[in-house]
Amino acid sequence: MVHQLPLGARDLLPLDVTQKLWIEQHLQQVFHRWGYHRIITSTLERLDTLMAGGAVQRSTVIQLLEAEDQGLGLRPELTASIARTVVTRMAGGSWWPQRLYYNANIFRKGGKTNYGGQQEFYQAGVELLGAGGLLADTEILLLLQECLQAVNLSDCHLILGEAGLTRSLLSAFPDKLKEPVREAIANLDRITLEALPMSQELRERALFLFDLRGQPQEVLSQVSQLELDSEQQQALNNLKSLIDLLQNCYSPQIYQPKIVLDLSLIQTFDYYTGIVFDVVSSTESGARVLAQGGRYDELLGLYHPQGETQPGIGFSFNIEDLHQVLLGINQLPQDVPTSDWLVVPETPQAYAAAFAYAEKLRESTQLVRVEMELGHRENVEDLRDYARCRGIHQIAWVSLEGVPRIEPVS
Amino acid sequence: MVHQLPLGARDLLPLDVTQKLWIEQHLQQVFHRWGYHRIITSTLERLDTLMAGGAVQRSTVIQLLEAEDQGLGLRPELTASIARTVVTRMAGGSWWPQRLYYNANIFRKGGKTNYGGQQEFYQAGVELLGAGGLLADTEILLLLQECLQAVNLSDCHLILGEAGLTRSLLSAFPDKLKEPVREAIANLDRITLEALPMSQELRERALFLFDLRGQPQEVLSQVSQLELDSEQQQALNNLKSLIDLLQNCYSPQIYQPKIVLDLSLIQTFDYYTGIVFDVVSSTESGARVLAQGGRYDELLGLYHPQGETQPGIGFSFNIEDLHQVLLGINQLPQDVPTSDWLVVPETPQAYAAAFAYAEKLRESTQLVRVEMELGHRENVEDLRDYARCRGIHQIAWVSLEGVPRIEPVS
Repeated sequence: MVHQLPLGARDLLPLDVTQKLWIEQHLQQVFHRWGYHRIITSTLERLDTLMAGGAVQRSTVIQLLEAEDQGLGLRPELTASIARTVVTRMAGGSWWPQRLYYNANIFRKGGKTNYGGQQEFYQAGVELLGAGGLLADTEILLLLQECLQAVNLSDCHLILGEAGLTRSLLSAFPDKLKEPVREAIANLDRITLEALPMSQELRERALFLFDLRGQPQEVLSQVSQLELDSEQQQALNNLKSLIDLLQNCYSPQIYQPKIVLDLSLIQTFDYYTGIVFDVVSSTESGARVLAQGGRYDELLGLYHPQGETQPGIGFSFNIEDLHQVLLGINQLPQDVPTSDWLVVPETPQAYAAAFAYAEKLRESTQLVRVEMELGHRENVEDLRDYARCRGIHQIAWVSLEGVPRIEPVS
Repeated sequence: MVHQLPLGARDLLPLDVTQKLWIEQHLQQVFHRWGYHRIITSTLERLDTLMAGGAVQRSTVIQLLEAEDQGLGLRPELTASIARTVVTRMAGGSWWPQRLYYNANIFRKGGKTNYGGQQEFYQAGVELLGAGGLLADTEILLLLQECLQAVNLSDCHLILGEAGLTRSLLSAFPDKLKEPVREAIANLDRITLEALPMSQELRERALFLFDLRGQPQEVLSQVSQLELDSEQQQALNNLKSLIDLLQNCYSPQIYQPKIVLDLSLIQTFDYYTGIVFDVVSSTESGARVLAQGGRYDELLGLYHPQGETQPGIGFSFNIEDLHQVLLGINQLPQDVPTSDWLVVPETPQAYAAAFAYAEKLRESTQLVRVEMELGHRENVEDLRDYARCRGIHQIAWVSLEGVPRIEPVS
């Protein structure tokens, strides 16, 4: 059974790769225009790095067998690794903020995913490190929007939350209830939430929190009915300013997304301290989270020897989900680029001349794709069939004397 | 200690990435011109797939902890994975030969490497599947040569061997000696070879084999002094034809490499059946193997349900070694591309106008890199210092009224 792929693994054939690269290149062009630079971190990391002080659960990490004393795993996301790298290797005062992006694979233990237990996924994303506040939040959300536009996706929702505020509103619950309430809200599981043992007052608060999503102005006015402490009030004001600025920024060039304010939004990884957000696309087969991100102002401190932190904010696109959605709306290339020429040596004495002619064709400043016939087809008709079937438009027959004869293939 | 990288892991900062991508893009342009298409296989594979019928030793594979029943590992090379993919997913008769390439990371257990126990490496390479014979061998060696030329490396040796012939010459040794003799030869370890317990006649044969390298014509005439069976004679004749054809093909455009014929050449992975080769660069700090490859005509059969095989040949570049050698001869970019513009909102009321102006600058058909000042620098002089220090040539100050004032930075 040596020929089987492991459960949950997946190969990308040339057409899949062409489509994946189309997506990544379109995103990358936007990252470049906004001044972001690519970084590549190690695929293997120490478990304690990956777990980011408990924000990432150990159960999501695929671990290695070998590493006796170290405890190594495969990264389930990139933000922790990039935070570690920047803090330990790029922390020079004059270099803040750092604008970084990545195209990388991540690994998660199989289970309840959309992809039949798939374990390896691709992500493309950015991290803006060393910059807090309204401008940085706005930059990231505008950049995200421009990425969606770059891949011709105009029908997504931006679900916007505030991790600090949500956490703080949850703090009213007794310790043993906090986690189940948080989980039920994160999983949009109203039934569990209603069944949890708590007082009527707490239950109402839980359901109030659960329902705290909708049109921004409405949700903001709902929240302001709560008794908020000064920190909560500050978070709410920041959110208001952000939504106002975003709405002023969206120009005809950057089309305006539908913003849903969702103060029950809780991300899988729990290192977020400020705004959090998902990009959700509704397709016929249901909703897909195309991207997610948020602000994490305490993460970098975890990797600093003296615990000094720096603000950070970022997002990542889920390339598989984006791929599926773009396939569904015919936005991706449907063909692998074919060869422009097939060069055929007519006799063994013409081999060197044929290679030389192929080389001459390739020397163009434009990309010219030239493949050599390697002598496996029996006759002239088989060769023409092959060229036709592969979409190759020209055959160059090279004779004993080294003279090429050009035949167009219809 | 959460901030430490695991032993042997490495991050690539933006300048490293710029240089790595320079190398990969130059190689990739050549692959495209020759009609090769990119493939991406799963990073995780079943151990039995990775071990390729014993050709790859289990001890080189980093294994996963989780996979109870499956035995999963991280690929230590790409050829086995690509063979599995092609056989199981791309095997349509009219599609041979398949020309595939990859840019990928591989993983090997730390130990006696040049990189202090490094475990993750990058490779770029090609596989030409479904084509045997002289033309296919020649294509691969010319393509290899053109890759070297594309990265401006003209001072390398091509070490050429023949795995089938070498294996067959080793078959004269008794079973218990075969492996130690093979290993001593592979490691260029003459001392061990001389110390192995064997008859005078076998020792002479072992040393004869050990020394079977040098200028092609000389080595060919040395080997022809041996009593060769018809299969060995055939392999020798093929080698002669290949060297002749290569020498006829190398044009002034494809400069002629120094070929060393080395019938003691044995690769780390043992799936090769025909020609094998290394590209070696001699630098001040010693020799580096920049690429390696060979013909493997039985590998694909391992992954076929009925054991049907197809010929295959390929090579892979070791990106880290190439990177080091190219750094040493100043062939790589020395800077990360900087932003063209820094856009500064002069007051909070100018935020939206500043984002809009930055957007306008980015809209150019050429790539224009624009970064926004996020409000962290105290005063105008700090901002100018930052722009100067980062190599940004223009600042756009955006006022309350939304009017940009352009200041060149010297």
